[in-house]
Amino acid sequence: MGRGDAGADGTMGRPVIAPMPLADGLAGLRNRRPVIHSITNPVAIALAAGVLQAVGARPVMTEALEEMDDVVRAAAAVTVNIGMPSTARADAMVAAAAAARQAGRPWVLDPVGVGASPHRRGLMHALLANRPTVIRGNADEVLALADMGGLADGIGIDAQATVEAALPAAAALAQATASVVMVTGKVDHVTDGVRSFGVANGHPMMTRVSGLGCALTCLTGAALAVEPDPLTAAVLAAALMGVAGEIAATSVAGPATLAAGIVDTLFGLDARTFQRTLRVQ
Amino acid sequence: MGRGDAGADGTMGRPVIAPMPLADGLAGLRNRRPVIHSITNPVAIALAAGVLQAVGARPVMTEALEEMDDVVRAAAAVTVNIGMPSTARADAMVAAAAAARQAGRPWVLDPVGVGASPHRRGLMHALLANRPTVIRGNADEVLALADMGGLADGIGIDAQATVEAALPAAAALAQATASVVMVTGKVDHVTDGVRSFGVANGHPMMTRVSGLGCALTCLTGAALAVEPDPLTAAVLAAALMGVAGEIAATSVAGPATLAAGIVDTLFGLDARTFQRTLRVQ
Amino acid sequence: MGRGDAGADGTMGRPVIAPMPLADGLAGLRNRRPVIHSITNPVAIALAAGVLQAVGARPVMTEALEEMDDVVRAAAAVTVNIGMPSTARADAMVAAAAAARQAGRPWVLDPVGVGASPHRRGLMHALLANRPTVIRGNADEVLALADMGGLADGIGIDAQATVEAALPAAAALAQATASVVMVTGKVDHVTDGVRSFGVANGHPMMTRVSGLGCALTCLTGAALAVEPDPLTAAVLAAALMGVAGEIAATSVAGPATLAAGIVDTLFGLDARTFQRTLRVQ
Repeated sequence: MGRGDAGADGTMGRPVIAPMPLADGLAGLRNRRPVIHSITNPVAIALAAGVLQAVGARPVMTEALEEMDDVVRAAAAVTVNIGMPSTARADAMVAAAAAARQAGRPWVLDPVGVGASPHRRGLMHALLANRPTVIRGNADEVLALADMGGLADGIGIDAQATVEAALPAAAALAQATASVVMVTGKVDHVTDGVRSFGVANGHPMMTRVSGLGCALTCLTGAALAVEPDPLTAAVLAAALMGVAGEIAATSVAGPATLAAGIVDTLFGLDARTFQRTLRVQ
Repeated sequence: MGRGDAGADGTMGRPVIAPMPLADGLAGLRNRRPVIHSITNPVAIALAAGVLQAVGARPVMTEALEEMDDVVRAAAAVTVNIGMPSTARADAMVAAAAAARQAGRPWVLDPVGVGASPHRRGLMHALLANRPTVIRGNADEVLALADMGGLADGIGIDAQATVEAALPAAAALAQATASVVMVTGKVDHVTDGVRSFGVANGHPMMTRVSGLGCALTCLTGAALAVEPDPLTAAVLAAALMGVAGEIAATSVAGPATLAAGIVDTLFGLDARTFQRTLRVQ
Repeated sequence: MGRGDAGADGTMGRPVIAPMPLADGLAGLRNRRPVIHSITNPVAIALAAGVLQAVGARPVMTEALEEMDDVVRAAAAVTVNIGMPSTARADAMVAAAAAARQAGRPWVLDPVGVGASPHRRGLMHALLANRPTVIRGNADEVLALADMGGLADGIGIDAQATVEAALPAAAALAQATASVVMVTGKVDHVTDGVRSFGVANGHPMMTRVSGLGCALTCLTGAALAVEPDPLTAAVLAAALMGVAGEIAATSVAGPATLAAGIVDTLFGLDARTFQRTLRVQ
C-alpha cells in the first residue's frame, strides 16, 4: 500500500498541526534532498524548478514516455499539472500518474484551467482514476472539478469565485476522491473532507506571478516526500509558499522581482522566521 | 465581420493618436482583464506570460489542438509566434490562426526568424492566409516577409537592417495583407499602409533581453482586446513596452534585471508617468 | 575536415592557457556575435538564451526537424542537452548532432541525467556516434558515461561524486571519444585526455540555480565559435561562468537573483575584471 493512499484512511486521528512539525518538514527537505518528478507547463517550469531547488529538492521534469517508469520509481513524489495539454504531454501526464500509483508514490494533481475545454475534463477523468494524494487548484478549478463529478449541485461556477465559496465543493471532492484538496486564494484552505486548515499567509501581488500556483503544486510534491500525512504536507507547502511570498513582498517592486524573491526567501528561510510568520488556522 | 478585419477597411479616418487614449487603453486592460491566447516559443513563454499578467491580461498558452477552438473562442485576442516551429507546434499555430479568423478574434502574427528556413516560409504562407490583424517583426523579418510576397524588389535583405530601411517594405506588406505592420527597432514604426506612427521610447539594452520581442507580440494581442482600432492598439503596445523598458533601464544592472524591471514597471505604471514618458511621432 | 574534429588531432601542441587569450575570446564573442544553435530542456531554455545573449551570441533554439539542416548550417556552433528527451525532442537532438558533424560545426554534448534511464543511455550512443567536440557534465554524468563505455571499471558510480573522483573517467572518456571533456563542480576540470586545466572560480550557491549547467553547455558552444582550440574554448566557457557567478554571488540574496546576476555580470564584464578574477590551474 503506497503513501498515495494514506490520505484516504491513515490520517484521521492526527493531532492539530503545530508550527513545529512544519519547520521540521523544511529541515527534512534540506537534509534529504528528495527527487521530485514534476510534469508542469512551459510557462511555469523554470519557476517551479527554482522553487524546488530552493528548498533542497531535486527536480526532474521529463515528459518522455520512454523513461517515465524509471524516473517515477527514482522519485520520492510526483506532481502533474494539466496546463498546455498537447497530445504528447497529456500522454505523459497520464503515464506519470499511473506510474506513481503503481510504484506507490504520493502524487499531486493540479487541474489548471480544467473548465477551459472538454479535452481537459477528459484528461482529468483519466488522471483522477489514478487516485491523486493531493489535488491543488484555485476556487474556480475546484468548483469545476466538483461539478464534473456531480458534486456541485446548487453551488454554481463563478468566473472568479472566492475560496470560501469553494469550500463545500472542496470537502465533497476530498470525500469523493479520497484525496486531500487544497484551494488556494487569499487564505489557502486544505481539507481531507473531515478536518480542514487555513493558511493565512501570502500577499495579493502573488496572483500576478505567472506560474506561482503551478510552483506550489510542485512544492506540495516535495512536502509529500518528507511528511507522510498528506494533510500536513499540503499545509506545509502552502505555509512555505505563503510565508515566502509575504516576506518577499515587503521588498520587491512588482511581480517579476516577487517571483525571484520567493525563490530566494525559500532558499534562506530559517525555522524561527518561518514559525514566527506562519498563520495556520 | 470580426475585429480581425477592422484594419483593412474601418480605421482610415481616425484622428492622430494622442497620449490620452493610450492611457485609457492601459486602464482598459486593468479593468477588463482580457483573456489572451498566445502561442509563443519556449524561450519567451515565461516572460510573455509575465508581461501579460503585469498589465492585467490573463494569458492562456495552450498548444493542444484538441482544445484550440474552445480556447480561442474564450479569448479576446490571439497571438502566434513562429519561433521553434516543431511539427506539433506549427500545427497548433495554424489551428489557432484559423480559429481566430473563424471566431472573428483579432490576432497578431510574429514572423520570428522567417528568413531562417523554407519551413518557416511555408508556415508563414499558411498563417497569412488567415489574415492577421497585426504583423510584428524586426526589420529583417519584415523585409523577408515582403520579399516572400514579391514586394521587396530592389530593397535587399540585410543581415541587420535598420528599421528605416524596412519602412517601404512594411507599408507594402500592410497594403498587400490588409494588416497593420509593426517594425520594431530603435524607433518602433507602425503602419497600416497609409498612416504611420513612430514610438521613440525604449533603451538599447532591450535588444539583449531574450524573448522581449515575443513578449511585445503578446502585449499587442492584449492591446487589441481593449482597443478596436488595430493601428492604435499596435501603438499602445509599442508604447507600453518602450516606456516600461526606458524607465526600467534607469535602474538595472543588465538584461536579466531589465526583463524583470519591465514586468514590474508595467505592473506599477500610472497614467501620468506613461503619458509624460511617451514619445509618439 | 570540420572544427568538430579539431580536438582529436589538431590541438596537442598548444601552449598553456594564459588569461590573455581568454579575454580575447570574450571580445571575440562581442564582436562577431556568432549564431549558436542549442537544443536544451525547457527548464533551462530561457536562462541559456539569456546567457548567450549576454555575451553577444545570437541563440537559435529550434527543435523542428524540418529546418534542422538549415539552422545548423547557419550556426557557428551547436549544443545538445539530453534533458527532457521526449520522442520529438530526442529526434531533434540526433538530427542536430548529425547535421553538425555533416556541416563540420563544433558541437557540445551535455549528458544531463544520463544515469536516469536506459532511454537516455540509448540516446547517448546515437549522439556520441556524431563525435561531439566537447562533452560537459557533472561528476555523476561523466562517471555514468565512462561506465557505459566500459571505461569506469573499479571507479564506481556515486550518487553525488566529487569532481576529483571523476577525473580518471573524464580522461579515459576524452581519449576514447576524441572529445574534450569538462567536469563541472567546485573546481571545473577540462581535459583532452592528455592536458588538463582546472577553473577554480564560482560559488556554492550556483548549484542551486536551475539550468545553470545547461546554460554553461550553451556558453561552451559560443566559446567554440570564436576559439578554434576546443580545450581553450571549454576553459573560456568555464571561466566566464565561474567568474560571473563568483562576482554576482557577492551581491545577491539567493539562487534566483544569482541567475539574473550572472546574466547581468556576463553582459557587463570587462577584460580587466575577468582576468583579475580568473583562477585557472
